[in-house]
Amino acid sequence: MTARPKCTIHDHHYGWDNSLKPALEVESGETIEFEVVDSGGGQFTPSSTSADVTTLDFSKINPVTGPVYVHGAEPGDALQVEILEFRPSGFGWTAIIPGFGLLADEFSEPYLKLWNYTDTSAEFHHGIQVPVRPFPGTIGNAPAEAGHHSVVPPRAVGGNMDIRDLTAGSTLHLPVAVKGALFSVGDTHAAQGDGEVCGTAIESAMHITLRFTLQKAAKLRTPRFSTPGPVTSHIDQKGYQVTTGIGPDLYAAAQDATRNMIELMMAEYGLSAQDAYLLCSVCADLRISEIVDAPNWLVGLYLPKSIFG
Amino acid sequence: MTARPKCTIHDHHYGWDNSLKPALEVESGETIEFEVVDSGGGQFTPSSTSADVTTLDFSKINPVTGPVYVHGAEPGDALQVEILEFRPSGFGWTAIIPGFGLLADEFSEPYLKLWNYTDTSAEFHHGIQVPVRPFPGTIGNAPAEAGHHSVVPPRAVGGNMDIRDLTAGSTLHLPVAVKGALFSVGDTHAAQGDGEVCGTAIESAMHITLRFTLQKAAKLRTPRFSTPGPVTSHIDQKGYQVTTGIGPDLYAAAQDATRNMIELMMAEYGLSAQDAYLLCSVCADLRISEIVDAPNWLVGLYLPKSIFG
Repeated sequence: MTARPKCTIHDHHYGWDNSLKPALEVESGETIEFEVVDSGGGQFTPSSTSADVTTLDFSKINPVTGPVYVHGAEPGDALQVEILEFRPSGFGWTAIIPGFGLLADEFSEPYLKLWNYTDTSAEFHHGIQVPVRPFPGTIGNAPAEAGHHSVVPPRAVGGNMDIRDLTAGSTLHLPVAVKGALFSVGDTHAAQGDGEVCGTAIESAMHITLRFTLQKAAKLRTPRFSTPGPVTSHIDQKGYQVTTGIGPDLYAAAQDATRNMIELMMAEYGLSAQDAYLLCSVCADLRISEIVDAPNWLVGLYLPKSIFG
Repeated sequence: MTARPKCTIHDHHYGWDNSLKPALEVESGETIEFEVVDSGGGQFTPSSTSADVTTLDFSKINPVTGPVYVHGAEPGDALQVEILEFRPSGFGWTAIIPGFGLLADEFSEPYLKLWNYTDTSAEFHHGIQVPVRPFPGTIGNAPAEAGHHSVVPPRAVGGNMDIRDLTAGSTLHLPVAVKGALFSVGDTHAAQGDGEVCGTAIESAMHITLRFTLQKAAKLRTPRFSTPGPVTSHIDQKGYQVTTGIGPDLYAAAQDATRNMIELMMAEYGLSAQDAYLLCSVCADLRISEIVDAPNWLVGLYLPKSIFG
């Protein structure tokens, strides 16, 4: 299915900056392979332990590969990015990083889980299997504002969006804010649930192949994408356990749903709180059931039962 | 699959009040059928028009059938409710009601869409087909607080949760806050997307059969449920069009994602803004892609492409 990529880009940078020199210049229609370093910048290895989370060098976090200059791209255009193919490394990690994540106040201890995964599955423990479905957590164009910008928050031009459905076969449209677009990609994940509640997914280095098509004067405000098929059929065959959070603040409701799910997983599946939190992050989905019955909204956290065999 | 119900309850009430006289008393393990009036209290008929939205009597909104007193139920218990079977009426409506809905400020004109639906599908127009998947929008126990409480907001004891996955075969657990639980159900929907963005679903009268089982001292904080299988396989075969909203407030991000989707549906499918908004409400899903990349979160609105044939 994949057009043969013109070349492989290896250059990566930290943070967004529209004054960075392009790693490559491409024409609309070209296909390029990117070598993506994992979001820890390679600091975790198969011999790492939870103690290594405390000495993580944050200046090396979330490198992105690029930037790619697209000829003819100007502010107001959109860049269509077809996500064609992944070559995953097979090694990954998930961490609870103090101060980071939806329940940062409750999970203050560093915790690291290492994974070896196949093309289809990553084993947790006790027979728990998480389906593998690779996607780039960070994918975007350079922002219009001059200077260096943290890679952590996503923006209208994309970036660290952590959309778990940007898998092979999907097509993403990104607003262009600067001449040449200056596209970069990174933070590849082998699996993640909607929300990425603990703050990390199955973080893993991969090669990813993308095709670029320029869309002139698209006037797109924020990224949009299209998927060619189902986005949950890899994991939903046995249905879900669902916990809820209810209240006037969606963020607090999402926290409550997650707390309730961790409690359920400890009681029903004998998991530790940390393992339950990690598992939610890599495979459970936050969904907004209702956002109109004022003053209380409802957020559900959907845990797929199939991971337990 | 369904145990034969002991009887059918017809009594309904407006709002929650733990001093209401029970319509029926049941033992744990019993199965009961409920005749549910639609959320408009029967005010819309096959001859209604958008003009009838303006004269809606809000004192007749969202009747719920019950209450059912469960012997032995006490505060701190949970009531397990197995959702066994629906007998839909085949007639339904969706309305844009001024002042109500996620984009209330932008959609200030009343608008009414009537539906005739089969067991599997509801036709919109131009060949657009929305799969039918009945569930009760409102299902819950009486709150602990004395007095009359609006039926509109959901609470820790359940109520107007609008969880689209409480379909036949699912099992719901509700906290009990008063002696006897005082369970009621209403607001049956033939179809709804996660979020119910315009404020109404395919609102439709139905009969619903439920089985009750008391769980002593369950110490459940908010409702939870379990589904026996996939929750999107009825609609996801052709994938999704997805728009996003990005920012520090999930509510505003959900609004942005919805605005962007309405614009896309107008441009790509030739729909009016009102029809696009309605369609999102009955079949598009709000999902939280990430809630950890501070300070910006990302909400996606997932429109299933299969509805367009």
